[in-house]
Amino acid sequence: MIELVGLDGDDTLWHSERGFALAHDEIRDILAVHCEPDVLDRRLVEVERANLRRYGYGAKAFTLSVLETAAELAADRLGVDDVRAILDVGKRLLAHPVELLDGVEGAVRATAARWPIVLVTKGDLFHQESKVAGSGLGDLFSGVEVVAEKDPAAYRRVLSRFGVAPDRFVMVGNSLRSDVAPVLELGGWGVHVPHELAWALEAPDDEDAIRRHPRFGTCPTLAEVPEWLMRIDGTRR
Amino acid sequence: MIELVGLDGDDTLWHSERGFALAHDEIRDILAVHCEPDVLDRRLVEVERANLRRYGYGAKAFTLSVLETAAELAADRLGVDDVRAILDVGKRLLAHPVELLDGVEGAVRATAARWPIVLVTKGDLFHQESKVAGSGLGDLFSGVEVVAEKDPAAYRRVLSRFGVAPDRFVMVGNSLRSDVAPVLELGGWGVHVPHELAWALEAPDDEDAIRRHPRFGTCPTLAEVPEWLMRIDGTRR
Repeated sequence: MIELVGLDGDDTLWHSERGFALAHDEIRDILAVHCEPDVLDRRLVEVERANLRRYGYGAKAFTLSVLETAAELAADRLGVDDVRAILDVGKRLLAHPVELLDGVEGAVRATAARWPIVLVTKGDLFHQESKVAGSGLGDLFSGVEVVAEKDPAAYRRVLSRFGVAPDRFVMVGNSLRSDVAPVLELGGWGVHVPHELAWALEAPDDEDAIRRHPRFGTCPTLAEVPEWLMRIDGTRR
Repeated sequence: MIELVGLDGDDTLWHSERGFALAHDEIRDILAVHCEPDVLDRRLVEVERANLRRYGYGAKAFTLSVLETAAELAADRLGVDDVRAILDVGKRLLAHPVELLDGVEGAVRATAARWPIVLVTKGDLFHQESKVAGSGLGDLFSGVEVVAEKDPAAYRRVLSRFGVAPDRFVMVGNSLRSDVAPVLELGGWGVHVPHELAWALEAPDDEDAIRRHPRFGTCPTLAEVPEWLMRIDGTRR
């Protein structure tokens, strides 16, 4: 019997990677006079990975990693206009209005009508809270948990906060690595709702094992999730 | 009767502003060839204020605001070495080991021995969590709440999470504006532990009214806080 449903935010409820992809394209254009786009792409992902432990996730971390990459690749040719343009890309990313994915509003309402729901998201705290506010869905959530890293310890803290046992918890999200794997590991349920765009650093190591797991499910879009949850909830009663 | 004690982190438990002040001095040195230090100081605080709504608090927000200010003041003379040096200052700020203020460990242990304690802090989620881990005090806390803005709504969420009424809650911190005023407004208690360094954006508008409030207290250092709490707790029993 389900007692709590966790929902991821970025690219599960609202578009996120699309904004980063557009920002990335703009950065390519800005730096095109200094370096080849594919050189930029390769180096940027390495810099982002190296900075993850210090910067964490989100648009500010992205902007700082882009500046570091640009300084390295453009070297002495980096101009003040490049710096300004990169800072502007980062600000627009932070300022971009929240756009819900298709069918999300109905799916979230249907889920919230049956079970308490909690948003579990990583990234920039400030930005995530403004996205929740901008989504118009904030009042439906019993809680909003912005965590530094979506690992089993973070989910354990969320569950202990809500007083819910792992096997009564279902987490729904677009990332096998962040939304599904750590919850399965804890003894909870994980539902994967794939998204066409995926960040390179979000790929899991053990995709097959996750997909074969007895508490794993997958839905083509969030609209199918309430029905999946009802089925699970029924078989456990 | 006290049921929960909230403690601020930056400049209440551990040094923070000192690190930002050192970083600020380094930025002045880096940009000295481009602009007068007092021009930099004035403009940087304006840029930080203008960016607060987008960037929030913390070392990444500071670094981005410094880069924006440098691009404006140095203009075409901004070089790639300046950009690199500024990024390095920001990274060192994030990497700096946690240094507890004098007497903090004993005071936190004495407080935690009598009442549940919760860390309520704003700033960068990733950086704050790594500071909690680095402080060695993490296990003493019943919860760590990193909030985007320390306003009454944020404290209300913390209290509802712990199921504690405002008049059973005492918040302790170095900022009248962020730690004391919003908690007094909710009906809770606020204890001010002043710190020699204060960020320009943390000054309250109504200092006198706060200091005259019947549920306001002040202690010269955190070491005196447990005794203050015991006195209050006694009179309320």
